[in-house]
Amino acid sequence: MSAENIIYGGERLGIYFLETGAGLRGSKVVYDRNHSGISDVEIGVIDWKKVFQDASVFHWSGLTPAISQNAADVCLEAVKVAKGMGVLITTDLNYRAKLWKYGKAPKDIMPELLKYSNVILGDLDTAFMMIGKDKVNPNYKDADSLPQFYDLFFDQYPDLKYMATTLRYSRSASHQQIGGIFYDKEKLYTATVREITPVVDRVGSGDAFMGGIIYGLVLDTFDPQYTINFAVAACCLKHTISGDYNLATKEEVEALVKGGPSGIVSR
Amino acid sequence: MSAENIIYGGERLGIYFLETGAGLRGSKVVYDRNHSGISDVEIGVIDWKKVFQDASVFHWSGLTPAISQNAADVCLEAVKVAKGMGVLITTDLNYRAKLWKYGKAPKDIMPELLKYSNVILGDLDTAFMMIGKDKVNPNYKDADSLPQFYDLFFDQYPDLKYMATTLRYSRSASHQQIGGIFYDKEKLYTATVREITPVVDRVGSGDAFMGGIIYGLVLDTFDPQYTINFAVAACCLKHTISGDYNLATKEEVEALVKGGPSGIVSR
Amino acid sequence: MSAENIIYGGERLGIYFLETGAGLRGSKVVYDRNHSGISDVEIGVIDWKKVFQDASVFHWSGLTPAISQNAADVCLEAVKVAKGMGVLITTDLNYRAKLWKYGKAPKDIMPELLKYSNVILGDLDTAFMMIGKDKVNPNYKDADSLPQFYDLFFDQYPDLKYMATTLRYSRSASHQQIGGIFYDKEKLYTATVREITPVVDRVGSGDAFMGGIIYGLVLDTFDPQYTINFAVAACCLKHTISGDYNLATKEEVEALVKGGPSGIVSR
Amino acid sequence: MSAENIIYGGERLGIYFLETGAGLRGSKVVYDRNHSGISDVEIGVIDWKKVFQDASVFHWSGLTPAISQNAADVCLEAVKVAKGMGVLITTDLNYRAKLWKYGKAPKDIMPELLKYSNVILGDLDTAFMMIGKDKVNPNYKDADSLPQFYDLFFDQYPDLKYMATTLRYSRSASHQQIGGIFYDKEKLYTATVREITPVVDRVGSGDAFMGGIIYGLVLDTFDPQYTINFAVAACCLKHTISGDYNLATKEEVEALVKGGPSGIVSR
Amino acid sequence: MSAENIIYGGERLGIYFLETGAGLRGSKVVYDRNHSGISDVEIGVIDWKKVFQDASVFHWSGLTPAISQNAADVCLEAVKVAKGMGVLITTDLNYRAKLWKYGKAPKDIMPELLKYSNVILGDLDTAFMMIGKDKVNPNYKDADSLPQFYDLFFDQYPDLKYMATTLRYSRSASHQQIGGIFYDKEKLYTATVREITPVVDRVGSGDAFMGGIIYGLVLDTFDPQYTINFAVAACCLKHTISGDYNLATKEEVEALVKGGPSGIVSR
Amino acid sequence: MSAENIIYGGERLGIYFLETGAGLRGSKVVYDRNHSGISDVEIGVIDWKKVFQDASVFHWSGLTPAISQNAADVCLEAVKVAKGMGVLITTDLNYRAKLWKYGKAPKDIMPELLKYSNVILGDLDTAFMMIGKDKVNPNYKDADSLPQFYDLFFDQYPDLKYMATTLRYSRSASHQQIGGIFYDKEKLYTATVREITPVVDRVGSGDAFMGGIIYGLVLDTFDPQYTINFAVAACCLKHTISGDYNLATKEEVEALVKGGPSGIVSR
Repeated sequence: MSAENIIYGGERLGIYFLETGAGLRGSKVVYDRNHSGISDVEIGVIDWKKVFQDASVFHWSGLTPAISQNAADVCLEAVKVAKGMGVLITTDLNYRAKLWKYGKAPKDIMPELLKYSNVILGDLDTAFMMIGKDKVNPNYKDADSLPQFYDLFFDQYPDLKYMATTLRYSRSASHQQIGGIFYDKEKLYTATVREITPVVDRVGSGDAFMGGIIYGLVLDTFDPQYTINFAVAACCLKHTISGDYNLATKEEVEALVKGGPSGIVSR
Repeated sequence: MSAENIIYGGERLGIYFLETGAGLRGSKVVYDRNHSGISDVEIGVIDWKKVFQDASVFHWSGLTPAISQNAADVCLEAVKVAKGMGVLITTDLNYRAKLWKYGKAPKDIMPELLKYSNVILGDLDTAFMMIGKDKVNPNYKDADSLPQFYDLFFDQYPDLKYMATTLRYSRSASHQQIGGIFYDKEKLYTATVREITPVVDRVGSGDAFMGGIIYGLVLDTFDPQYTINFAVAACCLKHTISGDYNLATKEEVEALVKGGPSGIVSR
Repeated sequence: MSAENIIYGGERLGIYFLETGAGLRGSKVVYDRNHSGISDVEIGVIDWKKVFQDASVFHWSGLTPAISQNAADVCLEAVKVAKGMGVLITTDLNYRAKLWKYGKAPKDIMPELLKYSNVILGDLDTAFMMIGKDKVNPNYKDADSLPQFYDLFFDQYPDLKYMATTLRYSRSASHQQIGGIFYDKEKLYTATVREITPVVDRVGSGDAFMGGIIYGLVLDTFDPQYTINFAVAACCLKHTISGDYNLATKEEVEALVKGGPSGIVSR
Repeated sequence: MSAENIIYGGERLGIYFLETGAGLRGSKVVYDRNHSGISDVEIGVIDWKKVFQDASVFHWSGLTPAISQNAADVCLEAVKVAKGMGVLITTDLNYRAKLWKYGKAPKDIMPELLKYSNVILGDLDTAFMMIGKDKVNPNYKDADSLPQFYDLFFDQYPDLKYMATTLRYSRSASHQQIGGIFYDKEKLYTATVREITPVVDRVGSGDAFMGGIIYGLVLDTFDPQYTINFAVAACCLKHTISGDYNLATKEEVEALVKGGPSGIVSR
Repeated sequence: MSAENIIYGGERLGIYFLETGAGLRGSKVVYDRNHSGISDVEIGVIDWKKVFQDASVFHWSGLTPAISQNAADVCLEAVKVAKGMGVLITTDLNYRAKLWKYGKAPKDIMPELLKYSNVILGDLDTAFMMIGKDKVNPNYKDADSLPQFYDLFFDQYPDLKYMATTLRYSRSASHQQIGGIFYDKEKLYTATVREITPVVDRVGSGDAFMGGIIYGLVLDTFDPQYTINFAVAACCLKHTISGDYNLATKEEVEALVKGGPSGIVSR
Repeated sequence: MSAENIIYGGERLGIYFLETGAGLRGSKVVYDRNHSGISDVEIGVIDWKKVFQDASVFHWSGLTPAISQNAADVCLEAVKVAKGMGVLITTDLNYRAKLWKYGKAPKDIMPELLKYSNVILGDLDTAFMMIGKDKVNPNYKDADSLPQFYDLFFDQYPDLKYMATTLRYSRSASHQQIGGIFYDKEKLYTATVREITPVVDRVGSGDAFMGGIIYGLVLDTFDPQYTINFAVAACCLKHTISGDYNLATKEEVEALVKGGPSGIVSR
C-alpha cells in the first residue's frame, strides 16, 4: 500500500489538543475530528482492491468507526475486501469515550467489524464492552487467568488467530509499568514488566506496541514469544521519546529485550 | 476589592531571581525587593475603607511585614480597618529568612498583626518562632499531636478561628510528599498525603493551598473536611504546572480529591 | 598553565553527537574525532617545559591516547616532562569502547603511560582491562574488598599515591546512585551514596568528580575523607545541571556534603 | 458589555492557521471555523437587551455574517436591538474570500445589516462589492476623489455618519506603507502615510485601526483629524508588535502621531 | 532512482557550520566534509546501471568533485554510465573556494566531467575559471552580452544543450536582487529581477533554481521562457523560507511568476 | 587591570529592561540601577593605585556619574589617580536622560571630570549640554563644520588630545546609517557612512565604536584615519550581532573597512 493511494478530500483536517500530564495530573485530550476527511468519507470512494493489491497486512483502529457512521461503513467495506483478498487483518480496539458521539455505541458497530479480524489488540474491559458483554473485572496482574476470557472471542470470531494487550499499571502520569501478553488460543505468552519513569511522551505508545506485534507476525521466523517481547520493548522505548513516532531502531528494541526491567543501561 | 483600587508608586518594581532545583540540588531565590512600591508605602496612602467596601475576605502574607517597617505599619493599618468592617482576615505566615533585614525580627512585628487574624496558615516551627517561642520540634508525621501546640495560638488570639498548614516532606527537590491539616480548635481534619514526582514547579503551591482554604471557607456549604481536602489537592496540582499560577479548574481539583494518593490517573 | 599555551592546528575540530537518554533508554554518543587537532598532534609540537612552568598538577584523560597513535605519543612525551619537573600527575582512565580504533588496545598503550601517574581514577573493571589483566568482577557494593585489587596497581606503579573511583549504580538513565572511594594504600575512604533522580545531564559528571579530587589534593589542609566527600558531592550536583560544566560553587558542594543522601533540601 | 454575558456553546472552537509571509512571499490563512460556537449560534440565544444595557458602542465585523446563515441572522438580530437602544453601531467590512461559503454572497446579506451602521470601515472595492455595485477601480492614491464614491453610501444608509479606511500600499509582505482616511460627509480627513519595514506581525492591524477610530469617537473632545491620526498611528505600531493584540499605550500612539513618517526615533 | 539505492558507508557524516549573516555582515560557512562517506567513495562501489534504470535525469553538483579525488573519479564513472543509458545530465558548477583542497584545481577535473553535461548552471566567472580560461569580467547587468561567452561552452562540449544562471545582485546579506537567464544557443531567455528583502535564509536557493530548471525541462510542454520564469521564482521564494528545503508549492511558484517584482502580495 | 581588582558590595545588582524596537517603534530602556553596588560605592573603597598599576588606558562612561553623587565622587577620585600615573583617560559622554535623577545636572558634574580626559567621545549636542552651553544645532551631515565647535573643548581642556563621535542617522529603529569622525585639533578624519538594515541589536554599538578608537590609539602604528575606519566598522558590525558584546574578530572588522558602504558581501 503506497502513498499514491491517499485520497484528499473532506472539509477540514482532524486535529486534537493534548495537555501533557505530570505526576498526579493526568494528560487530557480534546478531539476536534468532526467534519474531517475521514469523518465524511463515503462507501465507494476508496478503491480498496487497488489499495490492497500488494498488501499483506491491513491494520485498522477502533478510533475510525468511533468517528461517524460513514467512517464505520467504510471500515466494514474495507475489511470485507481485505478478507476476500487474503490480507491479514489486525485491529487495535482503541476505545475513546470522548469519541462515539454519533448515536451508536461500540457494541452496535464493532461486533460486525471484528468478525474479519485475525489479530485483536485490547485489554479485557474494553474488549468485553465492545462486544456488549458486562465487564469481567479481571485481575490483570494475574495474567494467567486471561485465556479463559479471551476464549470467548475465539468462540465468537472464527477468523481470529491471536489476541494481545499491553498490561499498563499507572503509578502516575510520569511513572508507568508496562508489560504485555500475546495469546494464540493454545498458549499465553508474557513479557517482562518494565518501569517507565519518567514518561517523556506517552502518545503513540500503543501504536508502537501494535507495530511490534505486526513486525513479529510477518517475520518468516515468526515466534510468539519474540513477538510479545519485541512489542513490549518497543512500547516502553516510545515512552522515552518525544512526539508520536517511535524513533527507536530494531537494534535498540532488541537490546532492551535483552536488558533487564530497568532498561538497557542497568548492569 | 477590584483592580481599580491599585495604587502605582514607589521607585522600582520588586523582583526576584529563581534558580530551579532538581533532585538533590534545592531551588534558590534571590530577592531584590528593597525600594519597591510595597517597601516604601506609607500610612494613609491606601484608603482601606474604600478597598474593603465590598470585600468579604482580606488575605495578607508574612512576606509583606518582612520587607520594611513601612510595609509592616501599613499592614497593621489594614487589618485594623478590616476588623472594624467585619471582613474575614486570613494570614499565611510565609517566613523567608532572606527577608526581615530592616532591623526587626518576626517576633517584634507579627504578634501585634496576628491579633486580628481569623485564619492562620503556617507550620508549627514557623508559627512558634513568629510569636517568640522556642521551637517545639514537633514530629509532624504524628499530626495527632498538633492540636496541643496550636491551642497556644487560640489562647493568645481570641479572634482566631482556624489554623491550617501543609505537611510537606521533601524527598528531594523533584520529589515531595504533600498533605495538610485544618484545625478549628474542636477537631483536627487531615487530608491524604500525595506523592509529587516529578515536581514541575513548586512556586505558588503555598498560595494554591491558601486559595483552597479560602474557597472552602466562603462556601455556603462550608465543610472543614472538604476544605482541607480541596486545599491539599489544589496545592498538589500546582506542583505539576509551570509558572506561579494554579491553572487547574475546580473540577480537576475535585477529581484529585476523589483520586488516590498517586493522582487522578491511577486505577 | 595559561590559555596562551594553546596551539591551534589540525584539520578540523573534534565533535561528538549526544542522544540524551531517559528512563530505560540509555544515552548514546557518536564520536567524530578523527583528524581533529588533538588526533594529528605530533611529538615536538608542544613545548611542555613552557606549559608546565608554573603548573602544580597535570591531568590527562584516557580519552586522549584512545584517539590516535600520535595523541598517545604526545601524551607520553608530556608525562615524562611533567615528572621531570615535579608536577603532580593525575589520570582519569575514561575507557570508551567506541574510541581505540587505530589498531592498539588499551593494554598496549596505557601501562607505559600510567607509570608516571600519581593519582588514578577508574573503576576496577576498567583499570584491570587497561593493564591487560582479566576482569575481576568485583562486587562494587562491597567496597571493603577494593583495596586488595587496587594494591596490584600500587605494586606495579611506584609513583602511584592514590586511587579513586566513583561508585555508580544505574537504576535507569534517569535515576542513578552515586558514591565514591579514595584509597591511599593505607586506608579506604568512602563517601555517602546519594540518589540522583531525575538525572538532568550526566555529561561532565566524571570530570566534576575528578575536579573535586584534585581540589582536595592541592589544599594545604589536604584531608582524604574531605577529598572524597567533596568529589562525590560535586559529581552528584553536576547531574542536576544542564551542560557539561559544573556550575555549582564550593559552598554548594560543601552544603551537600553536610546534607543527607537525598540532598540539601531534605530536613 | 462585560465578560459575564459570554455564552459558551457550540461543537468546537473556531481556529485558523497562519503562515507568516516575508518579502515577496505573502502570508496565508486557512480558516477552520465551521461548526464553531459562533457558526451555530441561533436567534434568541443571546439576550441582546441585557448585553447592551450599559453599552455605548456595538462593533461588529463582516467576518461574522460570512461564516453561516445563523451567524448572519443573529448579527441582524443584534443590530436591531442596538439601534433601538441608541447604541452607536460600528462595522469593519472585513471581506475574506475564503469565508462566505454557505451559499450567500456579501451582497445578499450585507446591505440589510449595514442599514443600521453609524460607522463603516472599508476600502472602496470591498464596500462596493458588498452592496452589489461594480468595482469602481478608484485610484486610492488620489484620496481626494474618495468622497464622491463614499457619498453613495450616505445616500443609501441614512443612519451612516462616518466612513473610514486604511490606505495600505504593499511593497512586499515585509514592507508596507500605511495611511488612512476618515470622512463625515462634509470633509475628508487624511493622515500621514508611514513606512512599515520590517513588518513584524500584520495580524490585528486592522483591528488596531478600528480601535483607534472608536477611541476617537467616544472622546468628549471628539475631533475627526485627531481620530484618523490616532487610528493610523495605532495601526502602524501594531505592525511592529508580535501577536494579534496592540500592546502600544495611548502615549506611544500619540508620540508617533507627533513623529515623522519614519517613526518616533527619527530626528 | 529510489531511496533503496542509497549505500551507507565511510567513516563519518559530512557536516558544515553556518554563521547566518545580516545586513553588511556576510554569512560564513565552515566545511567539515573530509573523510565523509562521499569523500571516501570508490570506483565500483555504486552500481550506476541499477541506480539509473528508471531515471530520466542525473543531476550532479561541482561540490562533489571538489571534495576528493575519489569523489571526482566516481562522478566521472557516473556520468559515463548515465550518458550510455541516455539519461539527461544536469550540472550546477557550485564553486566553493574552501573546498578543492586535495591538490587539484577545478580546471584539472571539471573539463573532463562537463563533456557529458547536457545542462550547465553557473555564472560566467565560475564557468570560465572551471575550464581554465581567464575571467572575462562580464557586466552581468547587460545580460544581452552573455551568449557570446556561453557559446564557447557549446563549441567545446557537443553534448551541451542549455546553459543557465541566476543573476544575483547583493545589496547586503539581507537584501538581494535575483534574476536569471536560460540559453539554448539560439536564444537568451531572461526572467524578471525581484527584490528579496529581508533574506530569511539563503541556503538552498541555488538548488531551488536548479530544481526549477529541471522541472521545466522534463515537462511534456517544455517551454524555455516558462522554465526560467519558474526557476527564478522558486529561487526567490526559497530566500523567504527557513531551512535548506524549498517548501513552496508549484502553485505558489506560479503565482509569483505572475506577480510583479515585489512579490505576490503587491497590487 | 585584572579581574582580581573587582570589589563585590552594595545592596543589589543594577539591571535594566530593554524593549527592542522595530521599524517606526523605537527601543525603550527602563533603568533599575538605584542602590546597586556602583551607585553606593564610596571614596576610598577602591585602591586606584593598585588598579592602575599595569594599565595604559582608563575608560569611563558618562553613565557612571549619572547614577549617584557617590559614583560621581569616585569617578573623580579615579581620574585624578589615573592622571598622576600617566594613564591615558578616555571618556564616552553617554548621556541618558532617564538617569541623572539625584539632583545634579550633567553641567554640575561633568566639566570637573572632563578636565582629565585625553579622549572624549560624544556628539556635539550632548557635548555642549554637558559643559553647560546652549545647543548649537549643527548640521551633522556637514561634518566639515565640526572642528570649530570641537575646538571649544580643546580650549577649555588642556589635557584633551582627541575627540570622536559616531554619526548616526536613524531612518527607523531597523534602519540606521552609521559613520563617524575623529578629530585631533589639527585635522578631521571621517569614515564611510554605511547602511545598517536590518538592525539586529543596537545595544553595545557605542561601546564597539569606543573599543575601536582605543584599539587604534594603543597600536604602535597609531594612524588616525585607520582608527576611525576601524571604529566605525566595528560599530556597524555590532548592529548585526545579537547581544551586547561585539563578537566580530579584528579580521572581520578590517574586511569591512575594505568593503563598500553596503558591507563585505557586495561585489
